[in-house]
Amino acid sequence: MAAKPSIPKGTRDFSPIEMSKRNYIFNTIRNAFHLFGFQQIETPAMENLSTLMGKYGEEGDKLLFKIQNSGDYFSNLTDEELLSRNAAKLASKFCEKGLRYDLTVPFARYVVMHRDELTFPFKRYQIQPVWRADRPQKGRYREFYQCDADVIGNNSLMNEVELIQLIDHVFGKLNIRVAIKLNNRKILAGIAEAIGEPDKIIDITVAIDKLDKIGLDGVVNELKQKGIKDEAIDKLLPILQSQGDNNEKLATIATVLQGNAIGEKGVEETDFILKTVAATGIKSTVELDLTLARGLNYYTGAILEVKALDVAIGSISGGGRYDNLTGVFGLDGMSGVGISFGADRIYDVMNQLELYPQESIITTQIMFVNFGEKETLHSLQLISQIRTEGISAELYPSSDKMKKQMGYANSHNIPYVAIIGESEMNEGTITVKNMNSGEQKSLNINELIALLKG
Amino acid sequence: MAAKPSIPKGTRDFSPIEMSKRNYIFNTIRNAFHLFGFQQIETPAMENLSTLMGKYGEEGDKLLFKIQNSGDYFSNLTDEELLSRNAAKLASKFCEKGLRYDLTVPFARYVVMHRDELTFPFKRYQIQPVWRADRPQKGRYREFYQCDADVIGNNSLMNEVELIQLIDHVFGKLNIRVAIKLNNRKILAGIAEAIGEPDKIIDITVAIDKLDKIGLDGVVNELKQKGIKDEAIDKLLPILQSQGDNNEKLATIATVLQGNAIGEKGVEETDFILKTVAATGIKSTVELDLTLARGLNYYTGAILEVKALDVAIGSISGGGRYDNLTGVFGLDGMSGVGISFGADRIYDVMNQLELYPQESIITTQIMFVNFGEKETLHSLQLISQIRTEGISAELYPSSDKMKKQMGYANSHNIPYVAIIGESEMNEGTITVKNMNSGEQKSLNINELIALLKG
Repeated sequence: MAAKPSIPKGTRDFSPIEMSKRNYIFNTIRNAFHLFGFQQIETPAMENLSTLMGKYGEEGDKLLFKIQNSGDYFSNLTDEELLSRNAAKLASKFCEKGLRYDLTVPFARYVVMHRDELTFPFKRYQIQPVWRADRPQKGRYREFYQCDADVIGNNSLMNEVELIQLIDHVFGKLNIRVAIKLNNRKILAGIAEAIGEPDKIIDITVAIDKLDKIGLDGVVNELKQKGIKDEAIDKLLPILQSQGDNNEKLATIATVLQGNAIGEKGVEETDFILKTVAATGIKSTVELDLTLARGLNYYTGAILEVKALDVAIGSISGGGRYDNLTGVFGLDGMSGVGISFGADRIYDVMNQLELYPQESIITTQIMFVNFGEKETLHSLQLISQIRTEGISAELYPSSDKMKKQMGYANSHNIPYVAIIGESEMNEGTITVKNMNSGEQKSLNINELIALLKG
Repeated sequence: MAAKPSIPKGTRDFSPIEMSKRNYIFNTIRNAFHLFGFQQIETPAMENLSTLMGKYGEEGDKLLFKIQNSGDYFSNLTDEELLSRNAAKLASKFCEKGLRYDLTVPFARYVVMHRDELTFPFKRYQIQPVWRADRPQKGRYREFYQCDADVIGNNSLMNEVELIQLIDHVFGKLNIRVAIKLNNRKILAGIAEAIGEPDKIIDITVAIDKLDKIGLDGVVNELKQKGIKDEAIDKLLPILQSQGDNNEKLATIATVLQGNAIGEKGVEETDFILKTVAATGIKSTVELDLTLARGLNYYTGAILEVKALDVAIGSISGGGRYDNLTGVFGLDGMSGVGISFGADRIYDVMNQLELYPQESIITTQIMFVNFGEKETLHSLQLISQIRTEGISAELYPSSDKMKKQMGYANSHNIPYVAIIGESEMNEGTITVKNMNSGEQKSLNINELIALLKG
């Protein structure tokens, strides 16, 4: 019984200081979601496996945490099935539920189940943990939070514009300098079609993605290796060599894509988004980035990704437009667009750059020293008065040695300590010690409240 | 694929309005915890089964949701083990992790694992969901939230006093009238000893509990059936017949318990708590209630329970003193006292009494009608200005028919709608419609911001 306890690998405990920091991030994101008119929902941690399976590819299915059925789940199994020892197959007999793997599939399931109660467009946000049986490593956990905002049931590009403004707002508030990368699935599809290789969209995007690392010759070689014809590569060259700002790049792409319907649509969408966002005067840079292929099988229009400028880390937010999120649950024609903030990576960035404002670390404002019963009764009434003003205050619970009580206040970063002995009780005063400066003052309760409020 | 999706029984989705109400409760409790100097921690949803098993009794072990191991967990099993079809035994081979069943055992595990980082007394709070494979029924769910505050590492009764103040504060803020019931495990143990039946403490408490329902004769009969001697019952009679306020009841108990060490200690503790709480001037009634036996095997001192006065429902908060929470993980001598707020029952009470203040329902403050591209660009800049003031605002994303746009604002309870057509653009004004009164006004942006702030 007395073995030293531990927690499952890839999971974490959060201490009070860590919670203050995490809450600062979550509250900033939540406030931004509200400011932009998103409404919160929550879904259960457990979903039916029938809801989750097959939605994240074969690899994703393996990473689902499955929950064992209650009761006697062996009775329906034949000897042969049991002795087959086929874990994957038998899991489906033992388990009907799993932990959610992301917030997107539960959201799609929510929209389908509640479609009659919803007015579209439906702007929802959701901040909840998800679980993945991934191999844990630095910065990758088996339990982590996602913060998602989506607009579903409306295909106006104004939604994309608002999401980019939202990203800019969140990282502005957090004081993280970012670049917002923008791409469009329709441009990628157009390029593949226009150069005569419509089925090679992924190979082409993967190769373009390496331009910075392996240079133009390297990309051309890789494309050849993938079986893309010289003629197609020649058509692609202007795009690979395109220089300049977003407008110049987009002009080059438009030339290549001239006459290709889906490609032209992608250029038009991107042009609209870039121009409208520029008119709103956001602070972050928005960069057209053709190498962005995030969730290519899933997105159908704009693709977004956010990189921190001052820390080398993967993307800290991302999203895009999807045209048929709910089709898999039998509700077609629901176009949506959304973004997800990676709270754990944002937490790492904030820690590295020490971006937390001092007031984000929540502590008790004042601790009353405990000298015994009589002084305590007196203190309790003053503490009640202070709390009524919305100021956090606590009484040290027992009349321990002064050194221990002060040590408690110190280790909890409590900025003020109130000392009330017999003389203070008689005089109706409070001796207040500023724990940072060491300075002591004698105040009455109103002066103390004024001090704590200031 | 297109089967209508569902969620596991006993779990719930929460809509935006439900989330507003739940957040109102959680925020009220969280603010109170901070005001009283409690610090937040979080622990993982999954704990090792070795941490959870055996902590909640045999029945509790069965109600744990167990998580299937990843990988090939069959290879270590013999044919014989498999064909035994012993679900309970094999579960321990298939599963190493489970979902947390409450917040108390994870807290004990946390204290033991992090003892070197903590300064005691440690006042922690935790607001997180827990999972139980209970049979779902009205008001009982398989996923529900607990809101726990505990002080560990200090045995001063001032902690009990502060928790009672905290309870009074929370329900005062929520506007729920409550009675706080108080008992003490030491009094119950003392009674059992004093009447010569030290092993029958549970039978005695269960019988006393029925006094209101079955009357004095009924209780006496039940005690006899349980094998309690007539002589013992005679000694118990003064307590069963005791009348009056807390002080009078406590005096009767003190008489019966005279000379019994543990009983006298219980009386002394209870007397101190009642007197000190009275001196703090809390609003809720505190009632000495000997029938309170909540978690008798677990608590060692004060026992607390809170009943709503205006709704018939079980206890909405409860807790008590435990002397050795962490002993099971190898750390002895840690006395603690805590309370837990039952968020789901509080939610039911609040709904029934309609206690939510209007401002607790979070909505967007103003929606801008969308007339097309040109008007939209103009609106976007006004919306940014409004959001800078911390006021939530949204643009209807597409230029749908006016009726549809107004319907959206209505169904989302958005109080104001801004209408900007060509004439408003030319004049630099905004036509603002109050959605409750139907009244329309022409304002400039500063007047609009003043209106929304007021």
